Amino acid sequence: MKGPDVAHISHVEMLTPKAAESLEFFENVLGMEVEATEGGSVYLRGWGDYQRWTLKLTESNTSGLAELALRAWDEEALARRVAAIERSGYGEGWIDGDVGHGRAYRFRDPDGHVFEIFHEVERYVAPERLKPSLKNQPQKYTARGAAIKRLDHVNVLAADVRASREFCVDVLDYRLHERIELDDGTEAGAWMSTSIAAHELIYTKDAHGARGRLHHVAFWVDTREECLRAADIFLDNDVYIEAAPSKHAIAQGFFLYGYEPGGNRVEVTTGGYFMFDPDPEPVVWTEAERALGQAWRVKTVEAFHTYGTPPVE
Amino acid sequence: MKGPDVAHISHVEMLTPKAAESLEFFENVLGMEVEATEGGSVYLRGWGDYQRWTLKLTESNTSGLAELALRAWDEEALARRVAAIERSGYGEGWIDGDVGHGRAYRFRDPDGHVFEIFHEVERYVAPERLKPSLKNQPQKYTARGAAIKRLDHVNVLAADVRASREFCVDVLDYRLHERIELDDGTEAGAWMSTSIAAHELIYTKDAHGARGRLHHVAFWVDTREECLRAADIFLDNDVYIEAAPSKHAIAQGFFLYGYEPGGNRVEVTTGGYFMFDPDPEPVVWTEAERALGQAWRVKTVEAFHTYGTPPVE
Amino acid sequence: MKGPDVAHISHVEMLTPKAAESLEFFENVLGMEVEATEGGSVYLRGWGDYQRWTLKLTESNTSGLAELALRAWDEEALARRVAAIERSGYGEGWIDGDVGHGRAYRFRDPDGHVFEIFHEVERYVAPERLKPSLKNQPQKYTARGAAIKRLDHVNVLAADVRASREFCVDVLDYRLHERIELDDGTEAGAWMSTSIAAHELIYTKDAHGARGRLHHVAFWVDTREECLRAADIFLDNDVYIEAAPSKHAIAQGFFLYGYEPGGNRVEVTTGGYFMFDPDPEPVVWTEAERALGQAWRVKTVEAFHTYGTPPVE
Amino acid sequence: MKGPDVAHISHVEMLTPKAAESLEFFENVLGMEVEATEGGSVYLRGWGDYQRWTLKLTESNTSGLAELALRAWDEEALARRVAAIERSGYGEGWIDGDVGHGRAYRFRDPDGHVFEIFHEVERYVAPERLKPSLKNQPQKYTARGAAIKRLDHVNVLAADVRASREFCVDVLDYRLHERIELDDGTEAGAWMSTSIAAHELIYTKDAHGARGRLHHVAFWVDTREECLRAADIFLDNDVYIEAAPSKHAIAQGFFLYGYEPGGNRVEVTTGGYFMFDPDPEPVVWTEAERALGQAWRVKTVEAFHTYGTPPVE
Repeated sequence: MKGPDVAHISHVEMLTPKAAESLEFFENVLGMEVEATEGGSVYLRGWGDYQRWTLKLTESNTSGLAELALRAWDEEALARRVAAIERSGYGEGWIDGDVGHGRAYRFRDPDGHVFEIFHEVERYVAPERLKPSLKNQPQKYTARGAAIKRLDHVNVLAADVRASREFCVDVLDYRLHERIELDDGTEAGAWMSTSIAAHELIYTKDAHGARGRLHHVAFWVDTREECLRAADIFLDNDVYIEAAPSKHAIAQGFFLYGYEPGGNRVEVTTGGYFMFDPDPEPVVWTEAERALGQAWRVKTVEAFHTYGTPPVE
Repeated sequence: MKGPDVAHISHVEMLTPKAAESLEFFENVLGMEVEATEGGSVYLRGWGDYQRWTLKLTESNTSGLAELALRAWDEEALARRVAAIERSGYGEGWIDGDVGHGRAYRFRDPDGHVFEIFHEVERYVAPERLKPSLKNQPQKYTARGAAIKRLDHVNVLAADVRASREFCVDVLDYRLHERIELDDGTEAGAWMSTSIAAHELIYTKDAHGARGRLHHVAFWVDTREECLRAADIFLDNDVYIEAAPSKHAIAQGFFLYGYEPGGNRVEVTTGGYFMFDPDPEPVVWTEAERALGQAWRVKTVEAFHTYGTPPVE
Repeated sequence: MKGPDVAHISHVEMLTPKAAESLEFFENVLGMEVEATEGGSVYLRGWGDYQRWTLKLTESNTSGLAELALRAWDEEALARRVAAIERSGYGEGWIDGDVGHGRAYRFRDPDGHVFEIFHEVERYVAPERLKPSLKNQPQKYTARGAAIKRLDHVNVLAADVRASREFCVDVLDYRLHERIELDDGTEAGAWMSTSIAAHELIYTKDAHGARGRLHHVAFWVDTREECLRAADIFLDNDVYIEAAPSKHAIAQGFFLYGYEPGGNRVEVTTGGYFMFDPDPEPVVWTEAERALGQAWRVKTVEAFHTYGTPPVE
Repeated sequence: MKGPDVAHISHVEMLTPKAAESLEFFENVLGMEVEATEGGSVYLRGWGDYQRWTLKLTESNTSGLAELALRAWDEEALARRVAAIERSGYGEGWIDGDVGHGRAYRFRDPDGHVFEIFHEVERYVAPERLKPSLKNQPQKYTARGAAIKRLDHVNVLAADVRASREFCVDVLDYRLHERIELDDGTEAGAWMSTSIAAHELIYTKDAHGARGRLHHVAFWVDTREECLRAADIFLDNDVYIEAAPSKHAIAQGFFLYGYEPGGNRVEVTTGGYFMFDPDPEPVVWTEAERALGQAWRVKTVEAFHTYGTPPVE
């Protein structure tokens, strides 16, 4: 089958100044598995991730997103996108692979976030203790903590949302589903995807005008009940809850937001809608519409609009 | 964005010998809206369908599936698929459009089911009484009956599953995710999709060796709780429940199966997994593995393997 | 079996200055059934209420709670409680019954809310169109709107919470499960029940020091998913949502709060805990603990602490 | 507050010939906590149990229920019930307490099951590592495995259901909510409770005519989603699933049945209805009505009607 040139987000690398506490969070609160440990980084996976890992946790003196990796549909798609990136002037060149994936092409978005794109990956093969009962599932359901299934989407901050959104649409061939346009014409947010998922890559405006920062990384659970349950787990494990479970107006995702010990915002998410329409008109939200709050008219806490990682000086 | 040539199943036409009772079922038990009525047919939609309608209910002297329509990604994709279909020898030619969509190319699969493919569709615009509160939703959530959101997938029966599956993969560019291969080499079922959804088009073996029959049409709800609730609704509205809510092993979908008054099997479905991997190895289930039953080791009722519409003589 | 003298809250009478709109809300948004209409009042029921009705909606020039009725366990329990009420000085005397229940004894709590207590009630017998499939269920599950199951609990406001709470415990034999005590010793809330339900009758402090007002009447659904779904229904039916679905710290109930068109606050509720312990020590929440917000650290909107019906002059 | 003389089932003692594997099941699959270990027995608790423990797991050469303990409402209620038991001729006398409860009166039901009744219990005080965030919750929500909240109900088998049911109603003051009466007048099942819960103590007919056997012990979770999730956990931990999640017609409880490694049937349960009516007419199910299957017309697997522990010779 032919598909979009960018198949999906393959992994993220997250920085943390509190490596041990962050690992404890991802392993026991979110319930991920450690698949590999190498050079100061721990590679983690959800029970439903088909690749070996989707989160690389790296000790650092600060927090934030070190890298966002895309998987190309096939080698031809990879070549097409690399050519487009090089034409855009944002390319940086080929680099070696990492645990579980082959050589990759590195680039930056206009805001400065580091991306890479590759096609070749290793598929996960569960060791005996993690063998699943159903053969269409990569791993046993361990049921530990919030037991997130897989990496779902990434929301980065940008000083200039429109520039990065246009780069994603024009150069990476993302499809824009929804965006926010303020009264003065500023683009305050853009929700994009290359699949029927309502969003996979989100840009929102950095309130501090900083560059290259992270808003949040989102992990999927299959049901809203698991989001509610995750809130109980966050509460009883002293994880800071920034926003209790509720429903977004934009993209209609169901959410729970908290901060992992390293300071990065993490979402447990589910729901939303599927975009089956191949050529939809993007939904544009005005400033007045955004002022109505989330789906059920809850006002989002202020920090949600201002906090990102790493911290701004 | 570029996508698969076949974007999704656009609609189905279902035949019923009990038009009034069937309409009552789809409108008040499943909770769909009547969008149009024309020439003995009623055109219905779920509150989340982006097109004007997805189910055409047509009075007939029997039951079954009259037509399965695919929406092509764009005009180029349409031209490509029509050329491939014509090369396959299964093409029948261009026909006029219907309510809400433009001209279409008609063809049959090797088993004889009638298909059509087109690109041009009208998007739904809700009348005042059905205006939604959220602008990224096509219609108000009416909350009537099971309140299904949209058409999800179709499962047809075939005398020769492999032949039709190969047609879908080779000619329509579907991707095969899972299939059943019996000990004697017979292909007993094939689950295919052109999106990250685990299945959209399913073929299973017709136990009677008949051709062109329907196994079921499935309608989506967002949560398993809505499937459970739908079972209560079926029960209290005297809808025959063939299989109470549970989880399939294949594709891991959560299901409720019943028969609408015209005799056609209908599913209320949710869940399953997303196939983000662009080049997955299809999962092949053996006869022994199938004998284990559904995901939670429930044996499926016998009728599920033998009943289809229209009835065989 | 012997049980508590007060079996449960039998019904409430709610006043509304917008009778038609309020009826539309309770019938089509909450999904209740009209069981009787008499003298400017409409008597409504949830599909799971065993009595004929639990909500009497009465047109008035204002909003608020006209009456809260308790069902005594048996005639002896009724006699015992009436004697205790008379001793307390709050009794007003016997009155005739109403639709579906026999003669009742009328009294007021120290805050001035009108109560009545009786034992004899008519049990609901469903007409043909509302016959349930399961014989242990009083009525068909109509699945209309939020489809609330039954009246659950009532929260009244009081100028002096402690006085009314002591009356309920000492005179009505309620059991106190949780309460709030402010730093200055004021009792700001009391959660009581006569069953294993964590709360059935709640008093919270009237921010205006007014008397006899209503905070909210709560209707039960069996699942949190139904609360979430009810929020979508409120949204798409222009019902004002005061607090989107979340979880209370006190009593741990899951909630959705809105205002019915007459202005009265209504809750759709589920969850909480069961109090099996026959002699529990009441949980006392301090001012500092309350400042942490709800279960998941959400701050309750200000109106929740100040708004009640009828409006204060 | 005055309540029923029997407040609730306080604990059960379960026998297992595979102590280590059974402990592994209750601790890691059901997610209970070990509160004490003494003399070949392990005392376990759910995170929501207010007492120190509710399940005593004792190594033995066979399986089954060693004891079912009731907590009396207060000392007067205890004295009343002991007097009634002694009058019935089924009393055996006072015995010392066990871990966490005071002296108890031992007796047998007419079928020979060992019971005890007491009032005095120790309430659970969580150690530091299990301190909950909400003070109205006895323990942190550990989120391990199915994470059952508490012991819910017990279903024992009896050669003569009616005799034991009458004993429970007449001598223990249980209230009968539902029962099955076969065409020949045999009572095949009885569902009783002393609270608003639809059932707490169930007797069903022993298909082998044996005495003193166990059908199942049920543990509560708050949501149906947790029952569905528990089925995934059972599956991936090789726990035998006898009946996948579905809904009972009788009492309308939602269930998942499996066998713990020692052979005892265990249920993960939620849902059902509350019986607020103090003097309900018991629902009587006929043989024909039972033949319709469970709530959603699923036929129960045969073993459910024949299997119990210990095995019959």
